[in-house]
Amino acid sequence: MAPLKIDLNCDVGESFGNYKLGMDEDVIPLISSANIACGFHAGDPAVMKRTIRLARQNGVAAGAHPGFPDLIGFGRRYMDVTLEEIQDYVTYQIGALQAFASAQGLKLQHVKPHGALYNQAVHNLEIWDAVAESIAAIDPRLILFVQAGPWRKTLESIGAKHGIRLAFEFFGDRQYNPDGTLVSRRESGAVIRDHQQVAQKVLKMVNRGTVTCKDGTEIKLSAETICVHGDNPSALDLVGKIREALMTSGIEIAAPDTFL
Amino acid sequence: MAPLKIDLNCDVGESFGNYKLGMDEDVIPLISSANIACGFHAGDPAVMKRTIRLARQNGVAAGAHPGFPDLIGFGRRYMDVTLEEIQDYVTYQIGALQAFASAQGLKLQHVKPHGALYNQAVHNLEIWDAVAESIAAIDPRLILFVQAGPWRKTLESIGAKHGIRLAFEFFGDRQYNPDGTLVSRRESGAVIRDHQQVAQKVLKMVNRGTVTCKDGTEIKLSAETICVHGDNPSALDLVGKIREALMTSGIEIAAPDTFL
Amino acid sequence: MAPLKIDLNCDVGESFGNYKLGMDEDVIPLISSANIACGFHAGDPAVMKRTIRLARQNGVAAGAHPGFPDLIGFGRRYMDVTLEEIQDYVTYQIGALQAFASAQGLKLQHVKPHGALYNQAVHNLEIWDAVAESIAAIDPRLILFVQAGPWRKTLESIGAKHGIRLAFEFFGDRQYNPDGTLVSRRESGAVIRDHQQVAQKVLKMVNRGTVTCKDGTEIKLSAETICVHGDNPSALDLVGKIREALMTSGIEIAAPDTFL
Amino acid sequence: MAPLKIDLNCDVGESFGNYKLGMDEDVIPLISSANIACGFHAGDPAVMKRTIRLARQNGVAAGAHPGFPDLIGFGRRYMDVTLEEIQDYVTYQIGALQAFASAQGLKLQHVKPHGALYNQAVHNLEIWDAVAESIAAIDPRLILFVQAGPWRKTLESIGAKHGIRLAFEFFGDRQYNPDGTLVSRRESGAVIRDHQQVAQKVLKMVNRGTVTCKDGTEIKLSAETICVHGDNPSALDLVGKIREALMTSGIEIAAPDTFL
Repeated sequence: MAPLKIDLNCDVGESFGNYKLGMDEDVIPLISSANIACGFHAGDPAVMKRTIRLARQNGVAAGAHPGFPDLIGFGRRYMDVTLEEIQDYVTYQIGALQAFASAQGLKLQHVKPHGALYNQAVHNLEIWDAVAESIAAIDPRLILFVQAGPWRKTLESIGAKHGIRLAFEFFGDRQYNPDGTLVSRRESGAVIRDHQQVAQKVLKMVNRGTVTCKDGTEIKLSAETICVHGDNPSALDLVGKIREALMTSGIEIAAPDTFL
Repeated sequence: MAPLKIDLNCDVGESFGNYKLGMDEDVIPLISSANIACGFHAGDPAVMKRTIRLARQNGVAAGAHPGFPDLIGFGRRYMDVTLEEIQDYVTYQIGALQAFASAQGLKLQHVKPHGALYNQAVHNLEIWDAVAESIAAIDPRLILFVQAGPWRKTLESIGAKHGIRLAFEFFGDRQYNPDGTLVSRRESGAVIRDHQQVAQKVLKMVNRGTVTCKDGTEIKLSAETICVHGDNPSALDLVGKIREALMTSGIEIAAPDTFL
Repeated sequence: MAPLKIDLNCDVGESFGNYKLGMDEDVIPLISSANIACGFHAGDPAVMKRTIRLARQNGVAAGAHPGFPDLIGFGRRYMDVTLEEIQDYVTYQIGALQAFASAQGLKLQHVKPHGALYNQAVHNLEIWDAVAESIAAIDPRLILFVQAGPWRKTLESIGAKHGIRLAFEFFGDRQYNPDGTLVSRRESGAVIRDHQQVAQKVLKMVNRGTVTCKDGTEIKLSAETICVHGDNPSALDLVGKIREALMTSGIEIAAPDTFL
Repeated sequence: MAPLKIDLNCDVGESFGNYKLGMDEDVIPLISSANIACGFHAGDPAVMKRTIRLARQNGVAAGAHPGFPDLIGFGRRYMDVTLEEIQDYVTYQIGALQAFASAQGLKLQHVKPHGALYNQAVHNLEIWDAVAESIAAIDPRLILFVQAGPWRKTLESIGAKHGIRLAFEFFGDRQYNPDGTLVSRRESGAVIRDHQQVAQKVLKMVNRGTVTCKDGTEIKLSAETICVHGDNPSALDLVGKIREALMTSGIEIAAPDTFL
C-alpha cells in the first residue's frame, strides 16, 4: 500500500524593501509548498526572486500568494472589490511571480490567495469560482489551495468546471466549529498554543480524516495540505514537531503536485 | 524582391484606475506593435487586460512596456537603481503582462523599456545588457526594442550574447544629433510638428537608411520599428500620415516578429 | 431680514501626476467651498498646491477631502478599516493639505470625507464620531461636511460633543428615499439629468427645507451646502443653472464659515 | 558660564504597516530630537501617531523626516526630481506629521530630510534653499537640520534669507574627509565600529570644534546636533556611551530649540 502523503505549506517572501519579515531561510527547508507573496500585500520583485531561489534550492514547490492591493494593511482588510477586479489582481500577481520562476527554470505549482481575499472566498464561493477561472486561463496545471471543510464537493465541482486541481487546506493550530469553519481569532482559545496538541491534531486529520472541534464534536475533514508558519522561532519549532509526528507515523511530506 | 517591412510601435495601456490616458481604441488599429504599460509607471491590472484584448482584436503584437516604480512621476524621472533592481522590476512587469496575454491565448512579442529607464539605458549599455539577460531568462523569443543609432553593432552583440533579437527604433518626430542621439527636448525645435515632414523623414530612413540631422548633416541610421503616439487627435493624424506614406511607397507595416 | 445663504461645494484637485481629472479652473470660480483631494484616493502634492492656489485666487474656501488609501479604486471601495485607522488616515491627509494652505496664507475651512469613507459614515455614525474627534483635535474651527437627513439631531450632538461645527450636505441631482437616504445609483433614475429640475429641487430645499422623493413623498430636509460637480462641461452647465436659480431668488452663495 | 549643550537626534518611526523597524521605545528616551518618518520612504499614519506619542511622553522634541516617494527603496535612491517637486514632497510630509503633533498638543521642532534627499542636498545647495523656503512658508520656527561642514557660512546665509534657524549635524560614527565631507560608505573603515572611539570623537567635536579625519588631518567642524541610531542593541549601546561621555564632561543634552 502506498504511504499516506501530506503537504506542508507556509506563507513566505513577505519581506518588502528594507523591511524583513519571516524566517524564510529556516522554514523553507521544512515545508513542501511555499506560498510566495507577489508585491500587493507584501513582497517585492527582489524578495520574490530570492524566495523562488530558496524554494528551488530546497526542492520545495513554489506557489503564488496573491493578495489585495493593500500593503499598509498587509492584505488583511476586506475590500469591496468586484469579481473581475479579483481576477485581474490574481492574474497580475501570478504572472509576476511566474516570470521569476521561469527565469530560474521553475514552474509554479499552486496559488493560495492571501488574508482577506482567502477569507472572503471562504464566505463567497463566487470568489473561488472567479479565481479558479483565472488560474485555468493562465495555466491549468496550477493547483488552487482552498480551505478544507464540508463544502468540499461544491468546491470540487468548481475545480472540475475549470479543469484545475484543488488542494484542501487544514489549519492544525486553529480550533474548528462543528460547521467546519474556523473559530474566529477574536474568541479566546481560537489558536492552539500547545505544539504537541497541534501535532496530534494534524496526525488525526491525516490518518482518520476527522477533527475534534472546540466544543468536543468530532467532524469529518479531509485535506491535502497543512498550513504552517515561519514567523518566529516558536513557529519553526511547531513545524518541526508536526514533521516529526508525521514521519514517525510513516506519512510522507510531499508537494501536492506529486500526488493529486 | 520581398517588400520592405517596418513596424509601427506605440505606448498604450497607460490609463490607471479612474484616470484615462491615451486614445488606445483609435491608435491600436493603426500600429503593428503595442507597448503596454505594466503597472509601475502607468497601467493597472484591469487596463492591462483590456489593452491585451484590444491588441488581440486588432491583430497587433503585444509587448511589455516596463518602467520605474514611480507612478507619480510617470516613470520619467531618473532613479539611481542597481542593475539587479532593474532586472527585478523588468522581470516582474513582463511576467504580470504575460499572464494577461496567456489568459487570452497570446504570447508577448517584445519588451520596450519606458521613459527614464529607456533613456538611462541609452547612456549606459550595461542596462541594455541587464535587460537583455532578464528577457532571455524569461523567454528568449521576446524581442528587445532599443534605440537605433551608431551603437547598433554593440547592441547587436549584446543581443547575440543573450540569444535574443533586437528591434532598433526610430523617432520620426524627433531631431537627431550627428552622433545619432536625439536632440534634447529642452532645445527648441527638438520635436518636429509638421506631419508631412515627419512622414518624409520616416520614408527616407526606411528606404535609404539615412536621417538628416538638425544641423543638416546626413547620417546613416537603420531601424526596424518607428515610434508613434496616440495621446491626442493630432498624434493619430500623424500616424495616419506615416501609414499613408509607407503604403504609397509599397512598404509593408508589420510586427518585427514576422521579419526579424 | 438677512438673505438666505447656501454653500456650493465641489470635489476638486483629483488629478494625479501625469493624469488630469476634472475642470478645476472652470468650476472653482463658480463654487464657495472646494473639497481638495489629499493624495490617498486622488491628488498629489503638486496638485494640492495648485488647487489651494486656485481656491485662494478665487476667494473660495478650501477644505480637505480625505479618502481611503486606494488610488487604484479612487477611494470608492469599502475597506474594512478600524475607527482608529480612519482617524489616522484623516489626520494625515488634513495635515498634508493644511501645510499647503498655510504656505499660501490660508486656513482650511472644512473636511469632507470622500467616496466609500463618506458612504460608510452615513451607515455607521461611529465613523462620523471618530472623524469629528480627529478634526477637533487638529483644529476645532474646521467644519465637518456630513450628509443631510433625518439623522441631523444625532449628528449635531456628535458635533457638539467634540466642539465642532457641521455643514449638512444636499445632493440636488440625486433622488431621495422617504427615509432621507439617497436612491442607490444602481436604480434607474437615481441621478437626475434634467438641469432645470435639479435647480428647482435645490431652490425648494433652500427656501422651504423640503425635498420631493422619487416616490412623490415630500420630506423635510435642511442643509447648508449643496454638492456640485466639475467633471465635464455638462456638470459645469448645471452649476451655472443652480447659481442662476439661487441668485434670481435672492439667495446668497457663501462658504459656511461665514454663516455657521 | 553656561554649560555646553548638544542635541542627540535619531531617525525613528520607520515601521510600516505590519513591518517593524527600529527600537523606538528604547532609543527615544536617550535622545533629545526625534526625526519621524512621514510615510513616503517609511512610516505610516498609525506609526506617526505612536511615534509622536513616544516623543511627547519622553519630553523629546519631534521633527519631520521627509523623504522621496520611494518606499521600496527606503528613500535611499537618488531621484531626478525638480526643486519644486522636492518642495511639494517636503511640504506634504511636514504637514501630515504636524497634524499628529497638533492632535497631541505638540509643535514640531525641526525638519531633517532623509536619505537620498539629504545626500543630494549636501551636493546641491539649491536643494537646501528650496527646503528652507518651504519650511519658512509652513512655520518659520521650524529648525532645519543640515550637514555640518566648511559650507556652514553658506548655509547660514540660506537660513537667514528665509528667516529660519539651522542645526548643523555631526556624524560621530563616520570618518570625515579633509574637505568636510563624509568618507563614502563604499570605502572600508568609513563607519567607526569602536564605541569608545565614537564617543571620544563626539566629545572632541563638542569641546574643541574639531574632528580628526581618516587620513589624520584635523579640521574645524562645529555642530549643534549629533546623529545617532536606534536600529539594534549595539546602536543603543553606542547612544549610551555617547551620553555618558557627554554627561561626564558636563555637557548638557538638549533639543536645539532650547539653545539656538
